[in-house]
Amino acid sequence: MTFSAPTTQKLLEEGAALTPRFDDAGLIAAVTTHAETGEVLMLAWMNAEALGRTLETGEAWYFSRSRGELWHKGATSGQVQVIEEMRIDCDQDAVWLKVWPQGDGGACHTGARSCFYRTIENGKLVKRK
Amino acid sequence: MTFSAPTTQKLLEEGAALTPRFDDAGLIAAVTTHAETGEVLMLAWMNAEALGRTLETGEAWYFSRSRGELWHKGATSGQVQVIEEMRIDCDQDAVWLKVWPQGDGGACHTGARSCFYRTIENGKLVKRK
Repeated sequence: MTFSAPTTQKLLEEGAALTPRFDDAGLIAAVTTHAETGEVLMLAWMNAEALGRTLETGEAWYFSRSRGELWHKGATSGQVQVIEEMRIDCDQDAVWLKVWPQGDGGACHTGARSCFYRTIENGKLVKRK
Repeated sequence: MTFSAPTTQKLLEEGAALTPRFDDAGLIAAVTTHAETGEVLMLAWMNAEALGRTLETGEAWYFSRSRGELWHKGATSGQVQVIEEMRIDCDQDAVWLKVWPQGDGGACHTGARSCFYRTIENGKLVKRK
């Protein structure tokens, strides 16, 4: 899947055309929340191929910055993310995925349900549900 | 405020030390949700100074990639974001802010409550509440 570039700021913000603005590394940010609870599960990145496959398959694909490769979430862990809804932000450089996590229902490689399992309190990290 | 670098992956993921991993541009991603409704309001970036000021002031500061400058959210719009809770993810390269939006209660420069006011449906963008 290929994507067109945005033409004007007005169309970017108000138009009906999907014209994602990938950064210099070819990526946009993706925030993923649980379709039922609304909890933020993870924040990751997508290149054009990951975005295209996500739209085509209805499952979340990302681009791993650390491994430098396309990544079908859950392919090895079983934590496949079935898309309930997908949104894009005003300037089309970030997407929001509402998903149903499969497998054990988690999203984090550490075993936590969400990657955001620690709060910042007085400069220290505290583990929370 | 200055931040230490992470030492080991175990401490990065399980430790109590805040050791944010800024990218090559000196930034981490920040996702901001409404403290009461859980709605994702925006996705933005923070450099070390923005993160430090956010922790010090209890209000959201970001780094604008387009303007290349530190940005106290709401300084001109009145949409100051008072922090309810702040979390960091497993590999400490993203933060999640739960906030109380002040002013008109919105977060987006377009006038929308959330920057994510459009869904992606069959390859097209559809405006939603």
